[in-house]
Amino acid sequence: MGTITKEQIAALYQQAQDAICAQLELADGKAKFMEEIWERDGGGGGRTRIMQHGNAIEKGGVNFSAVHGELPEKIMQALRVTDNRFFATGVSIVQHPVSPMVPIIHMNVRYFELGTGEWWFGGGIDLTPHYIVEEDAHWFHAQLKAICDKYDVGYYPRFKAWADDYFFIEHRGETRGVGGIFYDRQQGDGSPEAKKRLLDFSLELADIFGFIYTTMIARNSHKTWTEREKQWQLLRRGRYVEFNLVYDKGTKFGLDTQGRIESILMSLPEQAGWFYDFKPEVGSAEENTLKLLRKGLDWC
Amino acid sequence: MGTITKEQIAALYQQAQDAICAQLELADGKAKFMEEIWERDGGGGGRTRIMQHGNAIEKGGVNFSAVHGELPEKIMQALRVTDNRFFATGVSIVQHPVSPMVPIIHMNVRYFELGTGEWWFGGGIDLTPHYIVEEDAHWFHAQLKAICDKYDVGYYPRFKAWADDYFFIEHRGETRGVGGIFYDRQQGDGSPEAKKRLLDFSLELADIFGFIYTTMIARNSHKTWTEREKQWQLLRRGRYVEFNLVYDKGTKFGLDTQGRIESILMSLPEQAGWFYDFKPEVGSAEENTLKLLRKGLDWC
Repeated sequence: MGTITKEQIAALYQQAQDAICAQLELADGKAKFMEEIWERDGGGGGRTRIMQHGNAIEKGGVNFSAVHGELPEKIMQALRVTDNRFFATGVSIVQHPVSPMVPIIHMNVRYFELGTGEWWFGGGIDLTPHYIVEEDAHWFHAQLKAICDKYDVGYYPRFKAWADDYFFIEHRGETRGVGGIFYDRQQGDGSPEAKKRLLDFSLELADIFGFIYTTMIARNSHKTWTEREKQWQLLRRGRYVEFNLVYDKGTKFGLDTQGRIESILMSLPEQAGWFYDFKPEVGSAEENTLKLLRKGLDWC
Repeated sequence: MGTITKEQIAALYQQAQDAICAQLELADGKAKFMEEIWERDGGGGGRTRIMQHGNAIEKGGVNFSAVHGELPEKIMQALRVTDNRFFATGVSIVQHPVSPMVPIIHMNVRYFELGTGEWWFGGGIDLTPHYIVEEDAHWFHAQLKAICDKYDVGYYPRFKAWADDYFFIEHRGETRGVGGIFYDRQQGDGSPEAKKRLLDFSLELADIFGFIYTTMIARNSHKTWTEREKQWQLLRRGRYVEFNLVYDKGTKFGLDTQGRIESILMSLPEQAGWFYDFKPEVGSAEENTLKLLRKGLDWC
């Protein structure tokens, strides 16, 4: 078996983007993705797809990109690499639903290669319910665990804990949502076989994404809500903005490498709110959700 | 003349907070500040005052704090200091108006002292109109220049340029608004007289703040607006959030020193928006504002 090339990986990720967009349009039933093809000054480009004002999705992005060029010094230090020539390709998704009863979801799969030929995979999926439904969280984690276990029974416990640590809003002392999985710099033993396996793993995640999110929509979109739930949604979206602008490494990488701003920041919701010193009522659904925004909960 | 103590400076800044709050309540005519007295685990505390849902002010904060303790390693490096014992006191203000025709305003004056006795002042005022009114920008800068000139004719040109560089949203290539003045680590010749002068300068800025902002409200709050202007306001507030979470040093300092989150993030608007790839109409007021969000414009 020959080694898979970065161009092949990029092509597969682009196909994954197509498949996901088709599933989301079908689930939404109203909105269609608009597409923007862009080129990056330093090399490469991408295909940004945004869906807005749908039945289920208020604002959602499914981005594909394959960029290359030279890493700025700052990024080289952060990555602890000595070669500045890089290639990066991936699919990045964030969906902000209309209904506060439907969770926000994020997925990213990516492949990174240096000029020296050193390569690795990274990715993750995490779910951010405005209102945590415990059985949904269990179900969500079970889907991810099933895929992880097919590849390595060590993956789920490791990547689940990694997600808890990564999707954490340090200054609030809360997790972004119910977590999921997160992994970075995976290269196995560095062999062509390891590369193929890690690619397949990422493609399976991309493949199940549509099923996961359409299920989340189907399970929750019939629930009624009032102004109160909408306000809480705005507040939770505010936290999402805080995470993305303060901590998210993908966002930082994009901003630091002069990526296309509108593509990088498609992850931000159409509207978000900050209500000073909001305290949920004792025993309320909002309070219950806050209590569950913790690391280390076993959802499986 | 004896040297002014840090406690005296803190007391004067606390008085400045009182005076500003009284002026803003009067100008608003409806909302009153609510107060939160807080203590910081590591030492010191503050008095946060928030006004919400007024006639003119949708959400505004006027914070006083006087904190001390030990600087985290990260901050010591950023400040390039070798002593980790610090004292910091200041007043920090952000006002988000109801009307998109009234500008957002920010002011901060602060005093910093190390365990070694080394001290400096910092501060700034900047104006962020959702719609730039050129004569208001001229007037605003003229007020600041008049105060600067009383102390040092070199201040205004230097501090105005510093504000252009500081209040800049790098990833958007736009300034936050029409700028103002910004300064940091001012210690003159380090003498007690220099300290007194820099303190007086900061107190004059705090003193004129109420007049400046009530004038901005008076000049613009009678203007009518529609859903279109409100949407644009949400978008501009989104940019404000981006600046504060990605670049603002005060916010970073607060988050890194485990400050009180609700006080630090009172600068964020009650609602903000991100509309994918928004392009203003050619010749519109929105486009005109975007064109003026540039460094180096001479507003005096």
